[in-house]
Amino acid sequence: MAKKTKSEIKKRIADLRKLDISKMYMNDFYLTWDKTDDEIAAVFEVAEILRGLRENNISTKVFDSGLGISVFRDNSTRTRFSFASACNLLGLEVQDLDEKKSQIAHGETVRETANMISFMADIIGIRDDMYIGKGHTYQKTVADSVQEGYDKGILEQRPTIVNLQCDIDHPTQTMADMLSVINYFGGVENLKGKKVAMTWAYSPSYGKPLSVPQGVIGLFTRFGMDVVLAHPEGYDVMPECEKVAEENAKKSGGSFKKVATMEEAFKDADIVYPKSWASFAVMEERTKLVEEKKFDELDALEKKCLENNAKFKNWACTEDMMKLTKDGKALYLHCLPADITGVSCKEGEVDASVFDRYIEPLYKQASYKPYVIAAMILLERFKDPANLLEKLLSDGKERVMSDN
Amino acid sequence: MAKKTKSEIKKRIADLRKLDISKMYMNDFYLTWDKTDDEIAAVFEVAEILRGLRENNISTKVFDSGLGISVFRDNSTRTRFSFASACNLLGLEVQDLDEKKSQIAHGETVRETANMISFMADIIGIRDDMYIGKGHTYQKTVADSVQEGYDKGILEQRPTIVNLQCDIDHPTQTMADMLSVINYFGGVENLKGKKVAMTWAYSPSYGKPLSVPQGVIGLFTRFGMDVVLAHPEGYDVMPECEKVAEENAKKSGGSFKKVATMEEAFKDADIVYPKSWASFAVMEERTKLVEEKKFDELDALEKKCLENNAKFKNWACTEDMMKLTKDGKALYLHCLPADITGVSCKEGEVDASVFDRYIEPLYKQASYKPYVIAAMILLERFKDPANLLEKLLSDGKERVMSDN
Amino acid sequence: MAKKTKSEIKKRIADLRKLDISKMYMNDFYLTWDKTDDEIAAVFEVAEILRGLRENNISTKVFDSGLGISVFRDNSTRTRFSFASACNLLGLEVQDLDEKKSQIAHGETVRETANMISFMADIIGIRDDMYIGKGHTYQKTVADSVQEGYDKGILEQRPTIVNLQCDIDHPTQTMADMLSVINYFGGVENLKGKKVAMTWAYSPSYGKPLSVPQGVIGLFTRFGMDVVLAHPEGYDVMPECEKVAEENAKKSGGSFKKVATMEEAFKDADIVYPKSWASFAVMEERTKLVEEKKFDELDALEKKCLENNAKFKNWACTEDMMKLTKDGKALYLHCLPADITGVSCKEGEVDASVFDRYIEPLYKQASYKPYVIAAMILLERFKDPANLLEKLLSDGKERVMSDN
Repeated sequence: MAKKTKSEIKKRIADLRKLDISKMYMNDFYLTWDKTDDEIAAVFEVAEILRGLRENNISTKVFDSGLGISVFRDNSTRTRFSFASACNLLGLEVQDLDEKKSQIAHGETVRETANMISFMADIIGIRDDMYIGKGHTYQKTVADSVQEGYDKGILEQRPTIVNLQCDIDHPTQTMADMLSVINYFGGVENLKGKKVAMTWAYSPSYGKPLSVPQGVIGLFTRFGMDVVLAHPEGYDVMPECEKVAEENAKKSGGSFKKVATMEEAFKDADIVYPKSWASFAVMEERTKLVEEKKFDELDALEKKCLENNAKFKNWACTEDMMKLTKDGKALYLHCLPADITGVSCKEGEVDASVFDRYIEPLYKQASYKPYVIAAMILLERFKDPANLLEKLLSDGKERVMSDN
Repeated sequence: MAKKTKSEIKKRIADLRKLDISKMYMNDFYLTWDKTDDEIAAVFEVAEILRGLRENNISTKVFDSGLGISVFRDNSTRTRFSFASACNLLGLEVQDLDEKKSQIAHGETVRETANMISFMADIIGIRDDMYIGKGHTYQKTVADSVQEGYDKGILEQRPTIVNLQCDIDHPTQTMADMLSVINYFGGVENLKGKKVAMTWAYSPSYGKPLSVPQGVIGLFTRFGMDVVLAHPEGYDVMPECEKVAEENAKKSGGSFKKVATMEEAFKDADIVYPKSWASFAVMEERTKLVEEKKFDELDALEKKCLENNAKFKNWACTEDMMKLTKDGKALYLHCLPADITGVSCKEGEVDASVFDRYIEPLYKQASYKPYVIAAMILLERFKDPANLLEKLLSDGKERVMSDN
Repeated sequence: MAKKTKSEIKKRIADLRKLDISKMYMNDFYLTWDKTDDEIAAVFEVAEILRGLRENNISTKVFDSGLGISVFRDNSTRTRFSFASACNLLGLEVQDLDEKKSQIAHGETVRETANMISFMADIIGIRDDMYIGKGHTYQKTVADSVQEGYDKGILEQRPTIVNLQCDIDHPTQTMADMLSVINYFGGVENLKGKKVAMTWAYSPSYGKPLSVPQGVIGLFTRFGMDVVLAHPEGYDVMPECEKVAEENAKKSGGSFKKVATMEEAFKDADIVYPKSWASFAVMEERTKLVEEKKFDELDALEKKCLENNAKFKNWACTEDMMKLTKDGKALYLHCLPADITGVSCKEGEVDASVFDRYIEPLYKQASYKPYVIAAMILLERFKDPANLLEKLLSDGKERVMSDN
């Protein structure tokens, strides 16, 4: 990627000024489909501008102090580091709410915890993706709690929420995906009519979240693309997400359809996103069993699911499968880590040779995430981001001190 | 809470100048009763000034770099976040000494560890509240060790200690409590003659520290209030703390007495602080059993204690109990998290309806803790805090960069 | 230690200018013997200059934002805090890759993880010392991965590596050791002909890394000293490290030899470094058993080793042993924590009375580590460190804000 010039950055700041982002200020980011096209575009612009400033060794520290709170209710490497990077880029210090070290287990309510961690918090990033019907609700409860705290004068500032993955959507992932796609195809104007295959793929693990496929069909359908969803019988995503995809496709002049096989999905696709997930129904059952503490039945459920998964080992992104795509050269996307056949597991989502061929775009795809998160934070916390970014550019404070 | 104006901040800085705080510089903060009235008042002033500066978006970063070390030997949410917030507010980065990740278990002495973590430490915050006769001693040992390290030229600066809770006192909690009380009643001058009920309350848990009741009777008696301590037989606090309370009450023109029932304590009280704790004798026995690694007997002790606790389930802050207080409207205090009947446990310290009615003051009470900690740090590290704060005010460096 | 004056700092900056350090920029630091004498000298100079600036309350924050990633694959207190201190001193925020909280176990390759954590990383510090043939290789793989990421435009900067201990060398430790020795003897010019005894010592633990003895013989032989290595039969270090020591001794005009007893090594020594380690052969066997998941045999190996260790309890740094050294007053070095007889174990590496007598130099020895790490970072990240340091000195930005 070529380093952006200062005039390119200026051009983007000018473009940002044209977008209506008045409702983003002091608002949370949960689901991409809550946001207008202008708002989505603004996240991309700000992400690119922040990246451009950093490439030019220009500091983007807009906070002199302040905390960025992270709440990870599931293991995480890249999202954890992306959030930390984004906060550091803007001058916030990350403080992680480690529920094991906290007293949460001992009777704290969400409302209480939300306020207790927020006295000096400008942003709260939450990952809570394990249980259907839970993650998004939890995030909203945190938001309602800090709003109440702010309204009552308990909090001096109302921290805003960035959804770092919930049961419904994974906006920081899918927007990083999308931004990499925009760059890969040389601009958002080149996406119309491109075919995207969001497909299930076999993995020897169980219970992977649905937020990526749901988020992808919800977001990619906004760009006039032909989005196809494919999965084995019984691996449905949430119906409301399919509905979002349909409506978005209609509005954008693209299309959304479901097909029965990976082959059909891959046929002439420009972009493929083969990835494992558990079915919506299974995730619901699991959530119920956990709530009821029926751990024996939980084990039985896992066993049953893994057996069922194993029926669909042919849902794999093999070299043969890739040959079906447009000129055999579709862009392969994955949120990582992938289950690579013969590398991280015996049989998995993707052939090692396919995966290896796409290492460069895959890692670039991931590299947008810190900037997307930083853009969300900036758009949530500042009324006039364009002005702010222009000041940063003209101030030109060095990120790394120069030695000459 | 109304945002403080700059002239109110100036007024407070002028008030701060009148206090004799010469002995706070380069000194530790262990127990409130080690400190003079002027020193206690200075912590409140500085806390309010820092809060005022932050409300006015003025940076209070007095450290360009430096570490704030935290040592938590017990789980913690609010104190951990409060310490992190305070450090961040002043420009220190928190580094947590996680004893599980360290080599401490493998032969390091306290003296050694204290020096090893302090090469770039300006402050060390320690929470060690679990064992009677241990926590305070541990903190003093750390202090002696870094003093020796500084004297011998090993450390370039002598980090000072903030007691984040020990077996004797919990000064950052009780001073946050007190500062919220001062604000609630519209000024320290309005506290004379107010009745405070510090009472035991039932909880289905065992072994809660004594530092809060001990700290409250030790601090609240300094403000001319009538402090009453009540607990079931056998739940005594440390006798030396009662003695402190008696002496303080005498000096301040207030009173301290013990009564036998919660009812008597609550009668006409202006402030109630019903909270569970283990008895001093039990805590001593537990400490001994842990030292002797008699874990079977430890289980037996827990069982016995829980059974004993259960005899006093009527020690609960119910609606009926609240009706006994002054106009039925006493201020309800708790250090949180509370054991709320029907919410976090079947039967606990407080009725849900009572707790809910006091959410706002309770959370405000907690909101002072980061500022109290920051004030302690600032008073320990700077010779002329008033000058420093004035400089911050007149420099007016923005905490959050302005976008216009 | 007397605080350095500004003119002393200037003098050191001038000395730094005379050294050829052109190959350090954008390079990693793995093993001291990869580096030229000028490069080693530069680390010492920069460490002293940074220490001098901090003593004069001058900020050395050369990074406005940016991450220092730490990867600890073994427990650590002092190295963890030293790395955190070094990063904070320069303006980098530490982000720890906690492999337990990450998805690494679930199929991420080293290449992938290395890139995923590096989007905003300027430095990566790695400790991986447990398995022979693994640690150094792992560090190189991380370096190759981020180099590839940088070359392909995935990473905007190529983070450089600081070896915080591997299976071969422990450069941040041995260079802190060496810098303390230089200061103890009043200058590098006074070291020629000094006798150094690097000896094995008994400890009731098993499997301590070899990196310290290997690193010490590899580094100390560069200063014209007479380095003697002694250990019981079967506790050999890696042959290639002995070869490095021989060659270095030849070049520097010093000597390197192996002797059979601790007594012979200690005889007339100016410096003694008695420390336990596992033998190279045992470490290799252990690595193999872990790879093959033969955990029963691993237990048997441990038992056998501890039994074997116990034959050599007389390898202890006792008062009598110390009497053999030059005037009975050799400088006692240890990387800490030491196994102290009667303190941290029944019988260990050193008598309590010996250890206690050397507390001051021992802790000073440790105090150089943060500065050595910071110096390595600075030399890896800046083309003209002398210029940079001069700017810091002349800017004179306060680390702690002055209150007058």
